Amino acid sequence: MNLIEQTISQKEIYHGVVLHVVCDTVRLPNGKSAPREYCIHPGAVAVLPLCDDETVLMVRQYRHAHRRIFFEIPAGKLDDREEPPLVGAARELREETGAVAARYTYLGPLDTTPALIDERIHLYLAEGLTFESQDLDEDEFLTVERVPLLDLVRMVMRGEIADSKTQTAILKAYLYKKGGFPLK
Amino acid sequence: MNLIEQTISQKEIYHGVVLHVVCDTVRLPNGKSAPREYCIHPGAVAVLPLCDDETVLMVRQYRHAHRRIFFEIPAGKLDDREEPPLVGAARELREETGAVAARYTYLGPLDTTPALIDERIHLYLAEGLTFESQDLDEDEFLTVERVPLLDLVRMVMRGEIADSKTQTAILKAYLYKKGGFPLK
Repeated sequence: MNLIEQTISQKEIYHGVVLHVVCDTVRLPNGKSAPREYCIHPGAVAVLPLCDDETVLMVRQYRHAHRRIFFEIPAGKLDDREEPPLVGAARELREETGAVAARYTYLGPLDTTPALIDERIHLYLAEGLTFESQDLDEDEFLTVERVPLLDLVRMVMRGEIADSKTQTAILKAYLYKKGGFPLK
Repeated sequence: MNLIEQTISQKEIYHGVVLHVVCDTVRLPNGKSAPREYCIHPGAVAVLPLCDDETVLMVRQYRHAHRRIFFEIPAGKLDDREEPPLVGAARELREETGAVAARYTYLGPLDTTPALIDERIHLYLAEGLTFESQDLDEDEFLTVERVPLLDLVRMVMRGEIADSKTQTAILKAYLYKKGGFPLK
């Protein structure tokens, strides 16, 4: 079966501070046309910082869209589509936690919600951590705490960590380090 | 540290077919105000349909925002914020694959990208499958195939499945069924 949609035209809807919304008209496989609204995003990185004692540096941060505090791994947007993800990962890790990693292992890509946004988050495992100073933006508010990786796996399984990048990075890091599953 | 932001006002930016965009003004913990753009979403469900032979019903579907075909578990939006997630899960499973499940197990919530959208996907494991007929919308195009759960875990680990709900559901279903990790 042919599944591909062909782009006929694109209309700019909104270009704000963090959201860039467009509406494309596409040709469906059955020849009809349809609208496709979505957000354009520069991409992002998220880092699971694993200390030598198998604890993870986790971040608590308020997310206004959900009106609640999230428990997440350090993460952030790439500066633009040209920034190498590993450069962004090291920057976000340092800014949010003060940590600098001797080794990075790629945990794979994560497309957050492909029907609505083209955002791809590159996930990394960071090890060999040493600590310098946290470097938050003036208007950025978060706290850092250390939690054993196995406790985080149990929290994900019990539904106590909802953030998608954090769930995936925790489970992949655990299966890689403890389950013998190879990454690419 | 106080992390909470207080909503001062909300401005409607765009209300389209699938995207509802607003920009709130919030009071930060340091007393300054800041804009918060995000999308409002009714919520969604995703179902990992596990056959008795430990294969999973997977779906291939074109996602225009990414301009490529995704390999995903069956999923869809809730009709509105009042629809019980399990009702939506059974509907999407039946429509996309033709399967009807005797047993559902809740695999937990997934907040796809909390900085940008309030979307929450409820994940389910569906077992005891029997088959009726697929019931796609006229303008919906997808194909279904069966893949062993363990092969899917290996694909996720190698970075070959990028969709966030699909990665999380596969790894959680595996750790629940094979790893002895309890769900809530």
